[in-house]
Amino acid sequence: MTVSNCPLCLEPGGILVAQTAAWRVVRVLDANFPAFYRLIWQAHVAEFSQLSPAERSDCIEAVNAIERVLIESLQPTKVNLASLGNVVPHLHWHVIARFDWDSHFPNPVWGAALRETADAQASLMLPLDQLDQRVAAALAITRP
Amino acid sequence: MTVSNCPLCLEPGGILVAQTAAWRVVRVLDANFPAFYRLIWQAHVAEFSQLSPAERSDCIEAVNAIERVLIESLQPTKVNLASLGNVVPHLHWHVIARFDWDSHFPNPVWGAALRETADAQASLMLPLDQLDQRVAAALAITRP
Repeated sequence: MTVSNCPLCLEPGGILVAQTAAWRVVRVLDANFPAFYRLIWQAHVAEFSQLSPAERSDCIEAVNAIERVLIESLQPTKVNLASLGNVVPHLHWHVIARFDWDSHFPNPVWGAALRETADAQASLMLPLDQLDQRVAAALAITRP
Repeated sequence: MTVSNCPLCLEPGGILVAQTAAWRVVRVLDANFPAFYRLIWQAHVAEFSQLSPAERSDCIEAVNAIERVLIESLQPTKVNLASLGNVVPHLHWHVIARFDWDSHFPNPVWGAALRETADAQASLMLPLDQLDQRVAAALAITRP
């Protein structure tokens, strides 16, 4: 089902990294949080619990695969996972590598900034195009 | 493993609602967000991806069961799920019923408040002790 006024039904929502019939993974363009991926459920569903058990497993294992790539490739201080959807109630999961030097740490990315970070992207251990490739490769393994 | 300076190793972290050997569920005391549960992994593990696939399934199905009770019992505008752990890197999942009248909606609970809400708890469709009972009952079903 496509909802005519839902931005995640109308647009990719970021740089497309991988997709299946069930979900797509995009990288979000955020200068403060360059290693920020989003898994978007392709169908317009608001809540995680509206998925079937098999769909939830598929969804969360894909989220898990992204997290694992971020940890192995970037050695972040922490990975943050969240499915909020208050503004856009179309199921999507944020998967964000966090670093103790980033603009908001330890606050959530939605909280108050604590410092300015000149070039967060340049501080990552891996260029983003290579990170995208690793995420895509990891997701291909979990593809149903 | 218990970590001596980790608050979630030392204390329940809220009002205990249900637990298994693997996790416990507590209700968090937050006047702005009265229907706020937290699933805390019993073992001190930082990241979701450190769990085995079976543990991840057990964990996320319990999160799902809590979400479902919140939706069926309270008809919230949205449920928010998140595993952050920047401050306390001991795996825990926030499961929060959000309402369009709550102090922060549509902002995340970690964002800026947008309004004052006099008595959020009194606005819920169900008293919290009954909600706790429903959450506990739902979790007993998913217990491994």
